[in-house]
Amino acid sequence: MLSKADNYLLTRTGTDTDMGKYFRRHWIPALLSEELPENDCPPVRVKLLSEELIAFRDSDGNIGLIDEYCPHRRVSLFYGRNEQCGLRCVYHGWQFDTNGNCVDMPSEPKDSIFKDRIKIKSYPCEEIAGVIWTYMGPPEHKPALPEQEWMLVPDSHRFVSKKIQECNYFQALEGGIDSSHVSILHSGSVGGLGVSKKSNSPHLLAKDTSPKFEVVDTEYGMLIGARRNADDEHYYWRITQFLMPWYTMIPPFAGAPRGGHAWVPIDDENCMTWSWSWTTDRPLEQEEIEQMKAGEGIHAELIPGTFRPVANKDNGYLLDRELQKSGKSFIGIKGVGMEDQAIQESAGSITDRSLEKLGTSDTAIIKARRRLLNAVKQLNENEIVEALDPKQHHIRSASVLLPKGLPFQEGAKEQMKLTTQEVEIV
Amino acid sequence: MLSKADNYLLTRTGTDTDMGKYFRRHWIPALLSEELPENDCPPVRVKLLSEELIAFRDSDGNIGLIDEYCPHRRVSLFYGRNEQCGLRCVYHGWQFDTNGNCVDMPSEPKDSIFKDRIKIKSYPCEEIAGVIWTYMGPPEHKPALPEQEWMLVPDSHRFVSKKIQECNYFQALEGGIDSSHVSILHSGSVGGLGVSKKSNSPHLLAKDTSPKFEVVDTEYGMLIGARRNADDEHYYWRITQFLMPWYTMIPPFAGAPRGGHAWVPIDDENCMTWSWSWTTDRPLEQEEIEQMKAGEGIHAELIPGTFRPVANKDNGYLLDRELQKSGKSFIGIKGVGMEDQAIQESAGSITDRSLEKLGTSDTAIIKARRRLLNAVKQLNENEIVEALDPKQHHIRSASVLLPKGLPFQEGAKEQMKLTTQEVEIV
Amino acid sequence: MLSKADNYLLTRTGTDTDMGKYFRRHWIPALLSEELPENDCPPVRVKLLSEELIAFRDSDGNIGLIDEYCPHRRVSLFYGRNEQCGLRCVYHGWQFDTNGNCVDMPSEPKDSIFKDRIKIKSYPCEEIAGVIWTYMGPPEHKPALPEQEWMLVPDSHRFVSKKIQECNYFQALEGGIDSSHVSILHSGSVGGLGVSKKSNSPHLLAKDTSPKFEVVDTEYGMLIGARRNADDEHYYWRITQFLMPWYTMIPPFAGAPRGGHAWVPIDDENCMTWSWSWTTDRPLEQEEIEQMKAGEGIHAELIPGTFRPVANKDNGYLLDRELQKSGKSFIGIKGVGMEDQAIQESAGSITDRSLEKLGTSDTAIIKARRRLLNAVKQLNENEIVEALDPKQHHIRSASVLLPKGLPFQEGAKEQMKLTTQEVEIV
Repeated sequence: MLSKADNYLLTRTGTDTDMGKYFRRHWIPALLSEELPENDCPPVRVKLLSEELIAFRDSDGNIGLIDEYCPHRRVSLFYGRNEQCGLRCVYHGWQFDTNGNCVDMPSEPKDSIFKDRIKIKSYPCEEIAGVIWTYMGPPEHKPALPEQEWMLVPDSHRFVSKKIQECNYFQALEGGIDSSHVSILHSGSVGGLGVSKKSNSPHLLAKDTSPKFEVVDTEYGMLIGARRNADDEHYYWRITQFLMPWYTMIPPFAGAPRGGHAWVPIDDENCMTWSWSWTTDRPLEQEEIEQMKAGEGIHAELIPGTFRPVANKDNGYLLDRELQKSGKSFIGIKGVGMEDQAIQESAGSITDRSLEKLGTSDTAIIKARRRLLNAVKQLNENEIVEALDPKQHHIRSASVLLPKGLPFQEGAKEQMKLTTQEVEIV
Repeated sequence: MLSKADNYLLTRTGTDTDMGKYFRRHWIPALLSEELPENDCPPVRVKLLSEELIAFRDSDGNIGLIDEYCPHRRVSLFYGRNEQCGLRCVYHGWQFDTNGNCVDMPSEPKDSIFKDRIKIKSYPCEEIAGVIWTYMGPPEHKPALPEQEWMLVPDSHRFVSKKIQECNYFQALEGGIDSSHVSILHSGSVGGLGVSKKSNSPHLLAKDTSPKFEVVDTEYGMLIGARRNADDEHYYWRITQFLMPWYTMIPPFAGAPRGGHAWVPIDDENCMTWSWSWTTDRPLEQEEIEQMKAGEGIHAELIPGTFRPVANKDNGYLLDRELQKSGKSFIGIKGVGMEDQAIQESAGSITDRSLEKLGTSDTAIIKARRRLLNAVKQLNENEIVEALDPKQHHIRSASVLLPKGLPFQEGAKEQMKLTTQEVEIV
Repeated sequence: MLSKADNYLLTRTGTDTDMGKYFRRHWIPALLSEELPENDCPPVRVKLLSEELIAFRDSDGNIGLIDEYCPHRRVSLFYGRNEQCGLRCVYHGWQFDTNGNCVDMPSEPKDSIFKDRIKIKSYPCEEIAGVIWTYMGPPEHKPALPEQEWMLVPDSHRFVSKKIQECNYFQALEGGIDSSHVSILHSGSVGGLGVSKKSNSPHLLAKDTSPKFEVVDTEYGMLIGARRNADDEHYYWRITQFLMPWYTMIPPFAGAPRGGHAWVPIDDENCMTWSWSWTTDRPLEQEEIEQMKAGEGIHAELIPGTFRPVANKDNGYLLDRELQKSGKSFIGIKGVGMEDQAIQESAGSITDRSLEKLGTSDTAIIKARRRLLNAVKQLNENEIVEALDPKQHHIRSASVLLPKGLPFQEGAKEQMKLTTQEVEIV
């Protein structure tokens, strides 16, 4: 459990909040590159950490991310005209470039200097790995961009999706840290995407449903080893990284692409669940990509033209009690990612963690909460922002059998390196 | 009118409220038996007095009614698996029996004693007359179950339905106590369900629209006589009982089944309207049952798979101004029960009774308010709960002609007894 | 910009507000005559200045506008029966006449005097020019009715519509005062309704997009001249009147009907946009009327049976980015009036004017705000209500070319008179 005060601190991320200030010291995945497919294409609404913003790609291909509301009379720039290297408000024609400068003001006299005094809030953007990233913090503190493996592989090796999750980001993030529920909630469904053919993990996950957790604080965040009994001489280790402030890496399944997530607050009651699948040694097959788009594995089938899943809160996630009875999905909902989303949203918009009863299986999430709360404290009291060095991101999750007695950090050292050599994946 | 303070007291029934505490000393009709049609069938959401609960029928047929949220990480048990004599949370597999014990905890080590310390909130249930009843109060104060006639007749003699009403329970309950509106709101519609053929009541109700009320306090609640002029020598009496805390009995119409209601708070802005029709001397005919399911009389046609009426607030109750003009329904809405629901909901979620202007026709509801407010006071100050003896429920409503001068309690004595003898019904 | 306090004062119009008290000193366009098409027709819900009311036309053709809720038990009179010269509540039959008297009370004894003590809130109504007007202020202060030209022409010369706008009335009213946006937002669309063929205004509006404003305080409100450069010797003047408290007149386009608006608060987050088009010298053609009903010009196409536009907030106003690119609509939404509605609603329900950055093009709206705030102050401090003399309404907007150096009030004197003589319209 968590005190009501700590729960509040952890879950509120608006401009005036402590957690919001901490998150604003990091690069944020803001939207998919494909949402702005070409120069001068229609602008797009983006809500991040409770701020309403508009993204656009200007005539030269530069990305702008600015306040949704025109500073003049506060109407929405969503209706704006994206033209001549700027987004133009359609009410009185004020136009802004990607840096937030007012570059045209047809409603005022040509020789007016009023225009030069007008700025709109704007955030710098970078485009990497099919994702447009932004930084919403103090300019003088802008860090280097993340360098996770999925960002470094060729485009052909990567599939990235995002979906709206209708609950606080932390409920979603907890799912990414919590290896324990994989043996239960996903017991029927982890065999998807070609996993069952080559991987022994589903079998091992089912065999021992009460993993022991070993958690190591690291420079990037937390290294989490979940240990299950395999045979007399071996443990089965699932090794997950929590990369501050909101990234998690899924232990791989032999024969399947690797996967990871970011859980980014839209506002306090909604978050964007980013999911990436990638391969290290071959391009993704077209069939794999089609399956991901159709909602297999960690991705979700989306309502066309939106980022809301077809299965959602309003339709009870298309819960199928027959599918539940069959055990092919323990909950009865299609897709590993939607199993998570349904159960996480079912706790309400922002769950009251002061009512929880936590066990040993919750060790990793307890430590992750403390780590984040401590990071906020470090920023508040000492102006220190932890875990910002992207070189620390050159790391992989792992799924391995290790002899009993061998510490997992040591035993899985090779598996956690970025390498072109073949490594053991269970 | 009522003071704002008394109106508040009367209409709020959550866990921390005085009225909520009083209601929790009574058995509550919670759901229909048919909602849990077989052992290990899907669990069902039930909201009572603002508490979110889950009902399930376990492998042995026992009924459980427990907190909707798993004590572990507060996700909903609605998605739970009902299996092996308990409801299992699908997130980490914690399982609870009908008594609220945690009987399995696969995410923790087998030898852990943590499981034994975990309980989920659970309420005892009983199943009688097609209804699952629960008691949500202090265990040491659990009273005997109600014994109303509709509960005592053979199953073949009874039809029970429930529908969601989108207003505070007390607005609905007032309708059940208020004989006065029957002459007006229902003037066009009381002839339904075979009533018109044998009953003289519709004629007598129309003849005198300003009944005089005589109200007698009783051990079970209130006995209400509404007196109308019939002919020079007789009064027409409609006799209604208000059985504490929320039951009302409808005076019968000759040739038609008897009827009654319970008005149970879902939360402060919604209530469940329970309706029962029963016969004392013959099974209900199939045609009668079909008509009730189709929304004749006090029952409502429901949106399939829900307990929301087809005619509801969102579609203006399918108000038909031509039907209104015709007088076949004074309001222009199909069904006696839906006439009530529409007009009661039209006053808003919780009506402000400090603005009312009450007349002599409101005598019964004024007394019912006082009776309930006094019951709350008795519980608060003296730890006394009134009107709990189910033997007092062996009583019938009545619809009779009596000579002027004869007190109605005396004149209708035989009609109010549970008897197999034929009695006069107008 | 405006202080938060002044913004609050300007935008709140409920019974307890200063602006609400000021508005209640004026006649209010309440509903279209055609909404009550015949005697004893169904009653209609009307919400004005946050008050929920019911309008009805009684058996003699008199208009009633009364409280929506029956004083007896507070149920809605929307379900009432309009019959026998009064609106009858269907719950217990209480009936009210257009003056708010209770004229029948069948639930009480015939000789009861209770009825005579019951009144329902009622407001006087007048029916002029296809509009039902009401006065909601102190009876002793009831002013004379407005006398604007559209009200004085024959019925055949006039088309009146109303539409719900989902924002505060003042955001909408500002659009009516603000000539500046016509050169921008409406640059593609002002050529509709036969305007382009005869009028040079679209050309002149495009030529100079930064008008200079000259604003004159008048007895009726404000006379606003917006001056644009035309040629070396002439200015192009668009002259708009703001008639207190909420009327605006649109400068005409040669060859097209004249137009004007009222912007009336429904509640603080919604307003009714009234639009009138009229001709001074000929009846409107059937084709013109059909086009207005279809949403051409300032009118909107409505969802049948409602006053909500087909293009609305929920469907993104059917925004068409191709239409936007083409420039035929600068925003990409069909209809001049819907262009305004979309952009005004996009600022949110009640925009925060303390965040604005106003320029010289906002001169007229800055003065209008001050004028209204001052009117409220005059009422509060000195019990004076400004601008109530309807004789001052005998005035026209204008669209003229004037020699440089000639004051617009003087140069456009003839054009602003109500006259049968032909005057210059650009």
